[in-house]
Amino acid sequence: MEFAKTIEILGTLSFAMSGSFAAMQKRLDPFGVIIIAFVTSIGGGTLRDILLNRPIQWMISTDTIYWISAAALFSMLFKSIENNFKVTLFIFDSLGLGLFTIAGIDKGLSMGYPSDICLILGTITGCAGGIFRDMLLTKIPLIFQREIYATACILGGVVYFSLRKWGGIPMEIIQIIATGVVVTTRVLAVKLNWQIPKFYDGNSKGDY
Amino acid sequence: MEFAKTIEILGTLSFAMSGSFAAMQKRLDPFGVIIIAFVTSIGGGTLRDILLNRPIQWMISTDTIYWISAAALFSMLFKSIENNFKVTLFIFDSLGLGLFTIAGIDKGLSMGYPSDICLILGTITGCAGGIFRDMLLTKIPLIFQREIYATACILGGVVYFSLRKWGGIPMEIIQIIATGVVVTTRVLAVKLNWQIPKFYDGNSKGDY
Amino acid sequence: MEFAKTIEILGTLSFAMSGSFAAMQKRLDPFGVIIIAFVTSIGGGTLRDILLNRPIQWMISTDTIYWISAAALFSMLFKSIENNFKVTLFIFDSLGLGLFTIAGIDKGLSMGYPSDICLILGTITGCAGGIFRDMLLTKIPLIFQREIYATACILGGVVYFSLRKWGGIPMEIIQIIATGVVVTTRVLAVKLNWQIPKFYDGNSKGDY
Repeated sequence: MEFAKTIEILGTLSFAMSGSFAAMQKRLDPFGVIIIAFVTSIGGGTLRDILLNRPIQWMISTDTIYWISAAALFSMLFKSIENNFKVTLFIFDSLGLGLFTIAGIDKGLSMGYPSDICLILGTITGCAGGIFRDMLLTKIPLIFQREIYATACILGGVVYFSLRKWGGIPMEIIQIIATGVVVTTRVLAVKLNWQIPKFYDGNSKGDY
Repeated sequence: MEFAKTIEILGTLSFAMSGSFAAMQKRLDPFGVIIIAFVTSIGGGTLRDILLNRPIQWMISTDTIYWISAAALFSMLFKSIENNFKVTLFIFDSLGLGLFTIAGIDKGLSMGYPSDICLILGTITGCAGGIFRDMLLTKIPLIFQREIYATACILGGVVYFSLRKWGGIPMEIIQIIATGVVVTTRVLAVKLNWQIPKFYDGNSKGDY
Repeated sequence: MEFAKTIEILGTLSFAMSGSFAAMQKRLDPFGVIIIAFVTSIGGGTLRDILLNRPIQWMISTDTIYWISAAALFSMLFKSIENNFKVTLFIFDSLGLGLFTIAGIDKGLSMGYPSDICLILGTITGCAGGIFRDMLLTKIPLIFQREIYATACILGGVVYFSLRKWGGIPMEIIQIIATGVVVTTRVLAVKLNWQIPKFYDGNSKGDY
């Protein structure tokens, strides 16, 4: 319980900051920044809870909205040192992705859904906030462009289910490893400029 | 009951008209206009009801969809006199914002949610329809740009809760006052060209 | 039951393919294509199930997600022959529209909603997936531009209810006829370049 709560808060903070910075780039006013921070960090979990027909997370654990507001204010106050921040922020956004994906899978499993559905639920939980953020700022969502985003979620989820099937490993260790896989995949993808070959494209260099 | 219903219908009509005019500006065909009118006027309430896991308002009180269709048709027929309309419309849109914000807070309270969550619910109820409208028309939502929109909702909500705590004031009076605060704040903000200083911006004149 | 299931799968496949092709046009990577295929084909039904407060279709009948993945892969592999495909695809997209509209009306009726609400539910079920697809790809939704889209849904729905009131016709025949009306209306509209006159526009040739 304690552990799941920590995951949730860390993910929330990470996404709130990534939302704030995206909003400041588009030069929104402070309230706009806070709203985008909200949508980015609660978007994925809210959609997950609606699909699962559960009470919405942030509506029952009230402290969430204060964590988000604090993260947005913090981001605005420290905007000036953004350049030093950029790498940290990218790591945080990836961490949020990993944490939320695993949290989404967990919630689905705890309600008795089969593992393939939970994999999709996890991906939705991890990705939807960022998609909403980009839609509100009228950009083609980041997820569809260069970064291996959804792919990282699915890879992490597969590792999660494999370790679970293997048996004997404590749940929390599995969660940490799977989160690590999502984060590492995405960070390496960006660092090494990985791309999924567009095999449907006659002109691409993809060879399968 | 009677009073809450009146609020709902006035807000619905106001937003249906604002949606219709935005759609006509983008030169959609009449069915597109009606659809945007729908989304604008039921968007906020629908999202609120989904979050609260309640039956969706317009699906149980059937007359809503006829009010909206009528407002859209009316807007199209009287397009020619739009210029004389502009101020009226702006007032109506602000009125819709105020009415829906308070209606959203009320619904949340009646289901036992704490006041900070209700404040956010109210803001969502007031703002979401306009955000959906702008997303469908692929503009950066108005709310994020110049007008003090969400800020007006939150201010109205704070007044609502303060008067309630004060005690002794009839509920309907509180609702009218709080609605008035939202409307007045937004109208004054536009009239006097208020802006929230972007204090995260090194070049802005904001000094805190 | 059998028949309704067939309708659902055919509609799902049609929309998955239309989503895939739209995503490939925007040059998304394969995972992006699969995600857009998902959103296009489950978007309408998911929104319908959320509004009706029912379990989400694709979360309980698990095979849906495999049908969609298969359709997306198929679309990517056969991209090269797209030109020959174009007409087939347009027919399929129209078929999806018809099938989902009627499926939406049916679901609403089976839960006791009045026919005007069901008509709107059907239109939402038919149109929302395509709207989400276009929003994610940041285009003004197709539905608002040239094609008689929502109009076809509503026409089909009206035929559906009229035949039902008439009485004595087996349900499956009514469903096939109503689906046919939606498909035919849309196909003819595009073929013959029908447009709804913008009667609110002083410069248009619409004369009512």
